[in-house]
Parts: sequence; structure tokens; C-alpha cells
Amino acid sequence: MALSSKDLLGIQGMTSDEIKLILDTASTFKDVSERDIKKVPTLRGKTVINLFYEASTRTRTSFELAGKRLSADVINISTSTSSVVKGETLLDTAQNIEAMKCDMIIVRHSCSGAPEYLSKRLKSSVINAGDGFHEHPTQALLDMFTIREKLGKLEGLTIAIVGDIAHSRVARSNIHGLTTMGAKVRVCGPPTMVPPGIDNLGASVYYDMDRAVEGADVVMMLRLQLERQTAGLFPCVREYAKLYGLNHDRIARASKHALVMHPGPMNRGVEISSDVADSTPVILDQVTNGVAVRMAVMFLLSGGTKAEA
Amino acid sequence: MALSSKDLLGIQGMTSDEIKLILDTASTFKDVSERDIKKVPTLRGKTVINLFYEASTRTRTSFELAGKRLSADVINISTSTSSVVKGETLLDTAQNIEAMKCDMIIVRHSCSGAPEYLSKRLKSSVINAGDGFHEHPTQALLDMFTIREKLGKLEGLTIAIVGDIAHSRVARSNIHGLTTMGAKVRVCGPPTMVPPGIDNLGASVYYDMDRAVEGADVVMMLRLQLERQTAGLFPCVREYAKLYGLNHDRIARASKHALVMHPGPMNRGVEISSDVADSTPVILDQVTNGVAVRMAVMFLLSGGTKAEA
Amino acid sequence: MALSSKDLLGIQGMTSDEIKLILDTASTFKDVSERDIKKVPTLRGKTVINLFYEASTRTRTSFELAGKRLSADVINISTSTSSVVKGETLLDTAQNIEAMKCDMIIVRHSCSGAPEYLSKRLKSSVINAGDGFHEHPTQALLDMFTIREKLGKLEGLTIAIVGDIAHSRVARSNIHGLTTMGAKVRVCGPPTMVPPGIDNLGASVYYDMDRAVEGADVVMMLRLQLERQTAGLFPCVREYAKLYGLNHDRIARASKHALVMHPGPMNRGVEISSDVADSTPVILDQVTNGVAVRMAVMFLLSGGTKAEA
Repeated sequence: MALSSKDLLGIQGMTSDEIKLILDTASTFKDVSERDIKKVPTLRGKTVINLFYEASTRTRTSFELAGKRLSADVINISTSTSSVVKGETLLDTAQNIEAMKCDMIIVRHSCSGAPEYLSKRLKSSVINAGDGFHEHPTQALLDMFTIREKLGKLEGLTIAIVGDIAHSRVARSNIHGLTTMGAKVRVCGPPTMVPPGIDNLGASVYYDMDRAVEGADVVMMLRLQLERQTAGLFPCVREYAKLYGLNHDRIARASKHALVMHPGPMNRGVEISSDVADSTPVILDQVTNGVAVRMAVMFLLSGGTKAEA
Repeated sequence: MALSSKDLLGIQGMTSDEIKLILDTASTFKDVSERDIKKVPTLRGKTVINLFYEASTRTRTSFELAGKRLSADVINISTSTSSVVKGETLLDTAQNIEAMKCDMIIVRHSCSGAPEYLSKRLKSSVINAGDGFHEHPTQALLDMFTIREKLGKLEGLTIAIVGDIAHSRVARSNIHGLTTMGAKVRVCGPPTMVPPGIDNLGASVYYDMDRAVEGADVVMMLRLQLERQTAGLFPCVREYAKLYGLNHDRIARASKHALVMHPGPMNRGVEISSDVADSTPVILDQVTNGVAVRMAVMFLLSGGTKAEA
Repeated sequence: MALSSKDLLGIQGMTSDEIKLILDTASTFKDVSERDIKKVPTLRGKTVINLFYEASTRTRTSFELAGKRLSADVINISTSTSSVVKGETLLDTAQNIEAMKCDMIIVRHSCSGAPEYLSKRLKSSVINAGDGFHEHPTQALLDMFTIREKLGKLEGLTIAIVGDIAHSRVARSNIHGLTTMGAKVRVCGPPTMVPPGIDNLGASVYYDMDRAVEGADVVMMLRLQLERQTAGLFPCVREYAKLYGLNHDRIARASKHALVMHPGPMNRGVEISSDVADSTPVILDQVTNGVAVRMAVMFLLSGGTKAEA
């Protein structure tokens, strides 16, 4: 089996078989990063471009490592050094990069839809590394991989996603993915941060965090963008932390084996208390699995099939 | 045959045989970027430094890809991270880099002559990636490569270069190269942007764009630096676009097979209309050929000869 | 023999055998950078992270080249692009990087002790690339390597270190290393820049530069941080240069074979006159040796032993 699209733009619209294919392939690649020699020749001579219009350490580094461990040549282009400064259009920049003969372009952009827009006009594979408030598909894939690895399955699980749902591409991708895989998703946040109609995506809405985490198998915290306060979406950090921050009392309401997850970077003392952050190894497992999932995506988009992984 | 100099500082002074050697060598390297495995071992174990004192995406990326496809180790150093901040002289910075044993230093600098200054004091090969208003030799080489590829020759062709001739290192390098290869060069721009004495370089001067493109085999547009307006060199963008912008009416005055070229990044709606930009695939061919030409230059400067390419 | 620690945090506490092991190993690696193919497969498939919280060209480039010449995958992370911007703690950032399975993290940080703090919480090897006013161990190692290479030994030599001793991690690491190796160290600077108690580290204190360099085998100049003037530590640059700048008259007071050294970047005309800077090739030899010493450190920390080098 192979992926049906040349691109990975979002989780929305993917079948459970496609998601399963990526997760299964990631399992075989996870082993590579554990070896003494963390490198396979899979993408030797391929060119991968990290085109980042938003600052990022962990996502850029994760993609860069994934590419290099597959032996690809990886080139980083970030806004500060980019021709964007000179007023070039996004498409002209991307077409220029493609004209240098690359195989894959990994795009992070503050505009929702930017990767899709490019994907239709480029022959290269486009991987969405986060676009506006839209999707962050590799994050959802690594989250699903981690849950499946720890709890053995996705189907039938209850996952509570807590925080600024409205502005979270991580939440959106996870809702699509988790519901497709048969999990039940609860979203929870202050009413100003839960968009109307989110229940149409298959999630049930909670405004009370205690109720949202009740019996949940996974509690997935979102990073609070502190600049939302200026926008009037929440009155003060202390109140937000009290109402929607994760602490041990709240974890006690969840299922006994409940996983605590966070896409990082964490605001300790805001959406997650420092002692919870330090006692939940799963958050770092997510990071580890991110490299494996991205290797799998790159491999599959470059035409690899499960049998070859 | 091999190049006579250890450096590539400019097109001025190069013989037609040397230019032909680079273009012929580039032909053999162009194929590498088209392959499934875009990599040859030619410069394995060599160290190439991209020393950029001016921001640039495409040129830096093109050199980086050229180096990596030849299997060199490529290190990027850009102003923002450089010791220049600490007040070190250009020569001290370059000598320090050379002391780490590099083979090639690619220099972009806002001061005309900076690469030549370094080349005389360093053992490494210095490649000029654009210096002030002086030269941008690899750009002219990729332009000549592209013209020769599309029209089969350079000799006898008429090339119109339109825009801010006075501040364009691209124009200057192309005038030298194209006249050396037997082409006729017309330069055209507002009188404030055509330097006195440019005809001494072998170009004929036009102030009327309609006349300049009349029967031309190639129309090469230059990017308008919008900050020149503040300097009083042109009154307003709209007027500039009207008098010196390329549109389909003007292309109709050129030869039937005329090529439209642009070194990028383009100001759509200023020096080139958006529909012209989208209907001239040659502009992206230039970018593709840039990688091949830079591979050829690196190969030849590292001592390669035509027979080995 | 192998190093006793998984990290290189400072010279303080290292035995003379350990220092000798690194210097001897560096000798065998120095040859690699002189070869036509500057690359050995020693660290193939290992991941090395350059985590720089302070700007630096030469140190970052030196570590990057050292890693690449050992065939490691090297990833650069610098403050400007880092999550630090987003308020993540240093430890969270480092643990995230480690979760991606790296082998070595090279840390430069403005806080003394930051590398040590991380080393205790990470499984990866941590190399201190300069922390606050504390230590810069690879600089001292390359300085000792250079002295030993030029003068045949360290024991019994007299080394004068001149400048802002109080704020110099280079000075501190060298004092520890040189005294451990049996050299006599003199430190010299204006009283505001020589910290009380520095003689407890085994250095003798001078305030008169003419006396400090008298008969010295090595004169090691420190870079003057010009921003110290605002802090009132010296009245004016001209006076500083007169009292504590190196010129040919002062060199004449030192031993006949005396080496002039500087860690760079130099302030010509301040701590070192321009003609002295240009007539002392040793300063660039230090840079060359820096790559060899860093290759040796990486090799030894990754478990290599002298016999394998």
C-alpha cells in the first residue's frame, strides 16, 4: 500500500488505512534513531527543503533530523533570510526553489491554506508543518503514534483536548485523526476559545475542565499563546491556570492509565503545572516519535511502500 | 583545458574559451540534478563556505545545493550571526575561516571589490556571488547558458537589458560576457539609471524601451530596487512600469523566438507584468541552470578539467 | 586510555593525563584537515547539536566543521530561531533536543554553569563552548595544543595572559590548564579587571604589562569587550591600548622565541597593534588547531580511545 496523494496537507480527508500505514511505517523507522549509526540510505541524493515562514526550533529540527537520517540533503530557508523580505510572492519563492530540483518542500506558514495552495502548483511533495489555525498533520500523527504505542490502540479511547481550541492547528488535526481512528474526542476551553460548530467535526464540547478529563484515557494540553490575553480572550494568566491548567488533582479524575500529552513548548505554571510536566515522560516520547513519524511521511511521499520500509 | 585563475571574481577579463569551458562543463552537470539520485562524489571531503554579507535566498541556496550535490561539506555564514558584529575586519574573518582549512569561499558583499580583495590574500578559491554594483559572474554565466541552450548560440544575437543599469551587477557581468561571446548588447533605462560611459563596455544605449526591444532575441529585465525612488532616481512606480515595464505589447516588438529573462526576485506589476511573468518559463529555467553552472564553476576551480566532468 | 567524564564542561578538575590524552589525540586528527579529502567516517550516523545562545561565527563554525569532518550529522540551533523566544526553559529545550536522540550537545550560554546544569540532566555528552565568565575549555585546549606544537612542551614555560581577566572564560580555562600542565601563569590587566583571589588559582598577578611580559615564553592577549567602558572599568580605549596593548616594543621584552596568541576576534589597535597582529602567524594556527582539538574531544567523548584515533 502507498499514500494516495503526493502531499501531506492535513489529516482531514485521510482514511484510517492511510493513517495506519503512516503509523506502521513509523514503527519501523523509530528503530533507526535508537541505533548506534542513526542513518539509512533511503533518500540518498534527494533534496528536502525546510521552508519556514514562522520561527520554530523543534519542528524544523525534527524534520531536518528526519531528512538527514534518511540521507537526504536538507536545506533550511527561514523568513529572516528569505526573499520574502524583497516582496516576492509565496508562489514565486516556492517555484524558484522547485526549479532547483527539490523533491520535497516542508512548509510552515501563518496563513491557513498556504501549503495546499503551493501543492497544487508544484510537482514536489509538499508537507504541511503547520499553517495558521488550520492543520499540523505530522503533530497529530506523532500524537496518535504515541497513544497507540502506550495504550495499544486508538479505537474506543476518550481523549480530552484542553486549551485554546479555536486557534490550535494541533487540536484541529488531532480531532480529524482521532475521530477517523475511532476515538472519542472532547474539547475543552473557555467559551471565547472554543469555536462554534467544532462539534460538527465530531468532538463534544466542554467548558468545565474537571468534567472534560473525567475518565479520559488521554489528556492533551495545548499551549496557551500568551498574546491572546491582549486580544481579550482570557482575563488573566492566573485565572486561566486555575480553570484550565493541568495539575495532579485533575489528573486524578482521568482514567488510571491516563496519558498526559503536550505538543510543546510548555508554559509551566500556565496550562500545565511544573510538577505534572516533570512527572509525565510521555511529552518527551512525543518528541522522539516525531522524528520517526516524519521519516515515515518522507519515505512514503517519496514513493516508498510499506513492504520496503 | 582548465580555468586560468584560482578564483571567479568577474566576467570582465575572461576569454571566450574560458566562458565556453564553463558552459560546456555545466551541460554535463545539469544532468545530475535531473537524476533520481542527485549527487556525485566529485568534491567529497572538500569544504565550501557560503560567506554572505547580504541577505539572499536563491543565490545562497543555489550555491549550497551545488556544493552538496558535488558531495562537499557546505557551511553557511551570514552577517546576522557573524563576528562582523564584533567589529572584526573582513580580512580577519576570512583568514580565520581559511585557517579552518576550507577549499572555496563564496562571498556576497555590498562593497564592490570585496571578493577580489580577499582572493589576493587567501589560498582558497574565492567565488564572487555578487559584490556591490560591480559583478555577479555566476548570474551572467547562467544567463548565457540559458540563452545558448534555448537559441543554440550566443554569437550574433541581440540582447536588450532593461532597467536600472547603473546599480546592476547582473547587467555589468552580462555586458562583459555577452559581448565577449559575440552578442550585441543594448542597455535601456531612464537616463538617471544608465551610467555615462557604459557604451565603452561595448553596449549601445537606449532610453526608449520600444526601440530597445525592437527585433531583440532576448529581453532581459532587471529588478527595480524600490528604494531607488527615495533616492530620486525615478518619480513613481506606475510611471516606471509604463515606460520600462515589460508587457505583451512590447514583447511583440521583439524577435518571434525572443526569450524573456529575469534574474529574480521579480516585482510583478513593476518591471514585468504578471501575465508576462507567468507565460515565460525561461525565468525558472534560469534558476535550474544556476545550480548546474555553479557546480561547473566549483568543479573547475577545484582543479577539474573538461575531460573529467 | 579514555576520558573519565561523558562531558567536557571545563578544564578545572581535569588531570594532566586527560589533557595530554586530548592533545595527543588532536595531533592525529590535525592531519585530517590537511588532506585532499578532509573526512573520516568516525562519527557516521551520530547526531551533534550546536546549541548557541550567544552569537558566534568562529566557534560554531569550528565545531560544525569538526563534526562534519568526522561524518556526524550536525544541526545548528541559535537563539534567534529558538523556542527560547517562546519562554521555554533551558532544560525543556535541551530535553526536547535530546528526545530526538542526539549524541552530543555543544552549548554556548551567557550564564556560567548552564552546560554543567544540563550535563547532569542529560544522557548526551555536553561540551561547553563558553559559559558566561566561567570556562571555555576547547579554547584552552587549542591554546595548549598550539603552545606545545610550537615550543615542544608546556611544563616550565611562562605564559602571560593580558587583558580583562575578570570577565574572561578564556583566561580562566587557560589558567587551570596551564598550571595543571606545569606552566607558570602571569595574569595582567588594570586593577578593575583582575578579580581578587585569582592568585588562588595559581596565577601571579601583574598590573604593569612591561613587567608581565618580561621573559615570557607566550604572550596571550585577551579581547577587550568595548562595552566594558560604559561600565566604567576603563576610562578610554586609547589609554587602555597604551597601558595594556601589545606592540613590538613589548614583544621585545619577552623571550626571543615568544609566541603571541589571541583567541579572536581581534580589536586591532586596542589590545593588539595591527602590525603585531599581521606578523604573528600563531593566531591563525590557533584557529587551525581548534578544529583538530574539537574533533579529538568529540571522538573521545563518543567513547573513542587513544589507540583507535
